[in-house]
Amino acid sequence: MEPYVRIFDTTLRDGEQSPGATMTKAEKLSVARALAQLGVDIIEAGFPAASPDDFLAVQTIAIEGGQGPYAPSIWGLARAQKGDIDRALRAIERAHKPRIHTFLATSPIHRRAKLRMSKEEVIDRIRAMVAYASERCGDVEFSPEDAGRTEVDFLHAAVGAAIEAGATTINIPDTVGYTQPAEFGAVIAGIIEGVPGARDVVLSVHCHNDLGLAAANTLAGLRAGARQAEVTVNGIGERAGNTALEEVIMALETRRDVFGLAHGIDTRRLYPTSRLVSEVTGMEVQPNKAIVGRNAFAHEAGIHQDGMLKHHETYEIMRPDTVGAPRTELVMGKHSGRRALQSRLRELGYELSGDILDHAFARFKALADRRKQVTNADLEALVRDEVEQEAEVFRLAQLEVTSRTDGACSAKVVVEGPQRRHEMAATGSGAVDAVFNAIDRILGSRFELSDYQLRATNGGSDALGEAHVRVRGREGRTYRGFGSDQDINVASARAYLSAQNRALAAEGAIDAPRKEAS
Amino acid sequence: MEPYVRIFDTTLRDGEQSPGATMTKAEKLSVARALAQLGVDIIEAGFPAASPDDFLAVQTIAIEGGQGPYAPSIWGLARAQKGDIDRALRAIERAHKPRIHTFLATSPIHRRAKLRMSKEEVIDRIRAMVAYASERCGDVEFSPEDAGRTEVDFLHAAVGAAIEAGATTINIPDTVGYTQPAEFGAVIAGIIEGVPGARDVVLSVHCHNDLGLAAANTLAGLRAGARQAEVTVNGIGERAGNTALEEVIMALETRRDVFGLAHGIDTRRLYPTSRLVSEVTGMEVQPNKAIVGRNAFAHEAGIHQDGMLKHHETYEIMRPDTVGAPRTELVMGKHSGRRALQSRLRELGYELSGDILDHAFARFKALADRRKQVTNADLEALVRDEVEQEAEVFRLAQLEVTSRTDGACSAKVVVEGPQRRHEMAATGSGAVDAVFNAIDRILGSRFELSDYQLRATNGGSDALGEAHVRVRGREGRTYRGFGSDQDINVASARAYLSAQNRALAAEGAIDAPRKEAS
Repeated sequence: MEPYVRIFDTTLRDGEQSPGATMTKAEKLSVARALAQLGVDIIEAGFPAASPDDFLAVQTIAIEGGQGPYAPSIWGLARAQKGDIDRALRAIERAHKPRIHTFLATSPIHRRAKLRMSKEEVIDRIRAMVAYASERCGDVEFSPEDAGRTEVDFLHAAVGAAIEAGATTINIPDTVGYTQPAEFGAVIAGIIEGVPGARDVVLSVHCHNDLGLAAANTLAGLRAGARQAEVTVNGIGERAGNTALEEVIMALETRRDVFGLAHGIDTRRLYPTSRLVSEVTGMEVQPNKAIVGRNAFAHEAGIHQDGMLKHHETYEIMRPDTVGAPRTELVMGKHSGRRALQSRLRELGYELSGDILDHAFARFKALADRRKQVTNADLEALVRDEVEQEAEVFRLAQLEVTSRTDGACSAKVVVEGPQRRHEMAATGSGAVDAVFNAIDRILGSRFELSDYQLRATNGGSDALGEAHVRVRGREGRTYRGFGSDQDINVASARAYLSAQNRALAAEGAIDAPRKEAS
Repeated sequence: MEPYVRIFDTTLRDGEQSPGATMTKAEKLSVARALAQLGVDIIEAGFPAASPDDFLAVQTIAIEGGQGPYAPSIWGLARAQKGDIDRALRAIERAHKPRIHTFLATSPIHRRAKLRMSKEEVIDRIRAMVAYASERCGDVEFSPEDAGRTEVDFLHAAVGAAIEAGATTINIPDTVGYTQPAEFGAVIAGIIEGVPGARDVVLSVHCHNDLGLAAANTLAGLRAGARQAEVTVNGIGERAGNTALEEVIMALETRRDVFGLAHGIDTRRLYPTSRLVSEVTGMEVQPNKAIVGRNAFAHEAGIHQDGMLKHHETYEIMRPDTVGAPRTELVMGKHSGRRALQSRLRELGYELSGDILDHAFARFKALADRRKQVTNADLEALVRDEVEQEAEVFRLAQLEVTSRTDGACSAKVVVEGPQRRHEMAATGSGAVDAVFNAIDRILGSRFELSDYQLRATNGGSDALGEAHVRVRGREGRTYRGFGSDQDINVASARAYLSAQNRALAAEGAIDAPRKEAS
């Protein structure tokens, strides 16, 4: 039987550390559910000591996302400090299989410049904190941060201390994406060879993509004997990101002859999960991204198309359906029913029922009436908009925008509030600027715009326009908003209102709009 | 002295094969100039036999982009056929250092399913066609296509035949991105070891990214003795793309201790070149792309920010300025002059003077008057728009758009034509749809819309909106258009008109608009 590789997904922890990728608790829960469906073994749900929001998100996932015999194990991250470990334990205590992941940096630059600790102090702290965690939680993972730049002897000493103190998984992170595959493989082989007890724990690898080598380093670690891979969906994460889950899995699948390793991932869920994470985090996936990019299975050159017609294996080492990517996209039309919509949305990673499904279905019908075909991208944009607007206090009731090349742009906005309707007109340097100005005047513009992105779902000018907005709250927090509509001005208005609603709800200022705005 | 690695850039050939990345001749020339500035040794300028357009583009680059003692060598691709080789020779004959790159597939699946040739026939064809090309051009490169899946014995025989017939460079392509780094390194080492004459030619590597391993495989090839790397900017190319130039270079730089290889690239040009290629091809770069993604040097997590404040090397293995990426973006304002604009544009990869510079400067001033700061992204959007509109026959004179949530969207468009002004109104399912309908009625809608994308340059609602449009011409050809404006409706109109202008000019229908459109 082939040895089994555990997939440890850290999309919700290291992935969320991507600048701009902050997710709400509800979004994290939807990603956790998709990861469970995908078949990951472990979900690192967050860093509970980082903030009360992080704590709550981990707790929610532990309770709702980690139940049932096949549910993934839910792990919380903690620095090698009692306070962090206690918080993490508290957050995951109600999970089916709760685990702690604790870490301490071991490289010379981190010891000297960041920790200001001697080698002995580092070893002592590892020993004490792994023991502390082990007494309180059956399984503990320890990571020597920046292992890739740590002296081999000292790395072995640190790993040995953690194993002696009770760690059951040892994770080797290449924190700054510095190592080359052959080097990294040698580090793993060296630990197995040289550290007493290393054969009795699970060795794990955690790589970063600063030089574009995260997947290669992870695979080199697995070939050398590691049996856990720490990855994120779409490779999102700090800086150039983490190892992409989909790349590791498809290399193991496509080159089973080389690796001979088993895993628990349902590869057909790779593409839908990628789409969901991209939507929820706003981190776009480039067209030439391996496995999940929109061109990953597209053949352009005449010579390639000719070859593909003669035999698909001439230019294809995997079939798109293996990863759940649509080759010829199945299209929905105005004759598709409520059930068909629900089932298609499920494939796309959205579990909808009741009122939200009704609303989504009504909008789908309206769209299908005006367009020949409704694609997956349309459906995703539409459903995201519905989910987004679900709990809103201030809703867009009417909008009228005029824009002219001579610069006179104006907007009239009507917003339905908790007590009554608010109507306001404004001008701006463009149509969208005018719309945002009008909304600001209604709400009192407490939260400043920090990011505004636009996309069109498909080819046509009658495609759905998608707007992604961020506004700035207290202490550098940002709140996302999303809106979609066939009119990009309307989509922008919906997104901006949605972000303002979130900010108002989170920062407790949802009382009433300013007097002068009425 | 360190051995030298030649950088062979195929952005204009394999990169352009990315679905949707088609470039005009002028765009290819601007990329070729940027590649020369970057310091690449070789530009594969295209595949002259593929179409008359490809031929012309290669010829133009050979004449204008490949002169002077430090100019890159200009190569043309040719199948192993006399007709292809003759066309390629013709296209590059006026280059300073013209070269031919010819190829024939060698893997079992390609021999059987695509070529329908026996092993003997393949060897005979290689021998004959490499000899034919060598007699006509001093230096010839031969590639055994799909080498990654070719039997080792037969690969050695094919490479040996090409060397005997006069090939001076042997390129080993992993055409479908199938191999693992250790395997690929062994293939290169095996050729050096086992093929007579292999030490007297330059061995080259050409990898694809289907499993996310293109950079790792390329680097493994270089460590095994290859001395040329075939790469593209941003890793664009067929399917999941080619090896990214910037990843290979920065691995060689950052890990000089491991590789000990020299190259001729000016790393500070990596980021500007990446931006230019992304703009010109419309292929976006994801935020977590190594080296050139917008997050590649961003630090989000509190722990990381703390470490960075103490010492940048805690979480950084290269400085952003090494690759020409702005850390804190230098901003231009309304007091910046024409000269400052020209020099900033040069840094961004745009060489502007005369009328276009004047127009760009006027628009920059107008933008700077309305906004506190003008960023690099704004400048790029603005200049692209100017360059785009330069040679247009039909120009947008006036636009008025109204959109409303109740679905009634209308547009009035005035276009300045070669003979006179045309004015037309139309409605649509959204504001942009209405605008495009009005333009269609003016021009007679000969070219159907095939793609429409929107972006906002920066954070704010007063950012420049960028619209990217494609329309469909004869025989599956597509024509790109780009427009930018503070109003997204206006940007969309400019982009659509620009695409229509290109299509009209290229397909010889620039006579006059339809009668009824006047």
